[in-house]
Amino acid sequence: VSREGRDLELLEGLLGGKGLEGPGDDAALLRDAGDLLLTMDPLVEGVHFEVGTSVARVAHKLLHRNLSDLAAMGARPRAILASFVFGPTWVASQREELYARLAQECESMGVAWIGGDLSSSPGPAVLTLCALGSPSSTVPIPRSGLRPGMNLHVSGPLGGSLPSGRHLDFEARVELGVRLAEVHRPAAMMDISDGLALDLGRMLRASGGLGATLYEGRIPLHKDVDSVQSALGDGEDYELLFALEDSQEQQFCEDAAIPAVAKVIIGRVEGDPGLRLQRDEGGSVSIKETGFEHELS
Amino acid sequence: VSREGRDLELLEGLLGGKGLEGPGDDAALLRDAGDLLLTMDPLVEGVHFEVGTSVARVAHKLLHRNLSDLAAMGARPRAILASFVFGPTWVASQREELYARLAQECESMGVAWIGGDLSSSPGPAVLTLCALGSPSSTVPIPRSGLRPGMNLHVSGPLGGSLPSGRHLDFEARVELGVRLAEVHRPAAMMDISDGLALDLGRMLRASGGLGATLYEGRIPLHKDVDSVQSALGDGEDYELLFALEDSQEQQFCEDAAIPAVAKVIIGRVEGDPGLRLQRDEGGSVSIKETGFEHELS
Repeated sequence: VSREGRDLELLEGLLGGKGLEGPGDDAALLRDAGDLLLTMDPLVEGVHFEVGTSVARVAHKLLHRNLSDLAAMGARPRAILASFVFGPTWVASQREELYARLAQECESMGVAWIGGDLSSSPGPAVLTLCALGSPSSTVPIPRSGLRPGMNLHVSGPLGGSLPSGRHLDFEARVELGVRLAEVHRPAAMMDISDGLALDLGRMLRASGGLGATLYEGRIPLHKDVDSVQSALGDGEDYELLFALEDSQEQQFCEDAAIPAVAKVIIGRVEGDPGLRLQRDEGGSVSIKETGFEHELS
Repeated sequence: VSREGRDLELLEGLLGGKGLEGPGDDAALLRDAGDLLLTMDPLVEGVHFEVGTSVARVAHKLLHRNLSDLAAMGARPRAILASFVFGPTWVASQREELYARLAQECESMGVAWIGGDLSSSPGPAVLTLCALGSPSSTVPIPRSGLRPGMNLHVSGPLGGSLPSGRHLDFEARVELGVRLAEVHRPAAMMDISDGLALDLGRMLRASGGLGATLYEGRIPLHKDVDSVQSALGDGEDYELLFALEDSQEQQFCEDAAIPAVAKVIIGRVEGDPGLRLQRDEGGSVSIKETGFEHELS
């Protein structure tokens, strides 16, 4: 387990059983307040976006990265709070553009911007949202619901998000997440932010230490991606990864509201721990759980 | 108006009328979710605490700074989410201590830590909470309710918070905020984070452009503070500033649950805009609205 993985486990231990539904899930559930789902994610300048990235793209990513976490719970986004910590290079015109762009992004997603805070820093900008959503069904969809025999699906093509700039321009799968939660009820769902291998590994561990086999030829890749390794390890795809029982597949495939790419079965959950890749040319290899992890000392 | 003041005005304009109760208030109100109050505040290393500050004090300030905003609305805190952005100097043992200390602080305040996120940064640490509370009465107490003739009160002594280290050790006035909201219903309340003069000025502007006279000898000062200027301009006091009508004073003064210092009338709201200080030796001088403001370029 990496440094970040160890810290996340520590945090999940601390948070467990304290009003949280599924510590370590994409969003936290606050019971009895209309069953509100909450998530909180920062963009750090130099980590989540390079210095010099257009403010419009920064505002877009900031909102959609947070909405993606809500989509992964099948929640409809309602409101955000924003905490902006600006470094010395952020001049007034850039700050003003960020406020205006974020307000536009919120409006286009039907999200109310209800509060937040403003601070200065001697270092890089840190732009943090807390996003609130309402579950679209009585129970939000956790990461931890995988069982052996389930089929794995992904909402869109993967890989190459950083070099292509897609990590700045993706659209959170809000409508798809709600549709899945309302109609198809996947047993488990999350968004792929750190790479298919790493995030699927987290899902399998959260489900009690299961394993999975992925089918090499069925993992959807972006046109500019030539290796399945990119899909497994690049991260920042923000596509939904979810699991259905065999018995759910027919109704799911007949749903015209689901894009064709999401109907492909890319793998299968198994009782045997570990991740395996079934190669096109035959045979199966073990997959290392690589992906983006924050460098903690 | 300063750079920060101008940015805050811009943000209030953008947020106005979009589901927010009182943009620019200490916390935002999410209607119809059990009327939840939300606030979000960061601690930036090198700004809100110095490098080398003990992790225990950082964890304490992080929680109480956010709870103070809820107290200022008369809300009872319920839950937090935490987003930790760690710079390279934060080693594993420090991070672990921060998690454990924050969990302890939450437990001692009856607050559930329900979620959050973990990231790395090449710069200083930025530790951000989103805190959620329930209003202790049907309507939370805004900043904007001042009217001419009202009496101003403050919950405790002011000044010298930074040199004394009190800015790290203060206790958010949670019980007092709830008591005020439940029993005495001040027309307006906020917490003093940037200095009495600056924060009172904000309250007066939010209330439609009123003014006030403060009584020099009645402003409570900490023992290590020798000038009223410290109380006016130092900031980081995290005491509650609130306003009562003359007709409320008797019942308020008879309430044994209110500390004596809070019963002193430190000033009076007036229709004439601007801040004035009535000197002990007689006469009145105009007060400049100075206090802590973030340095934005």
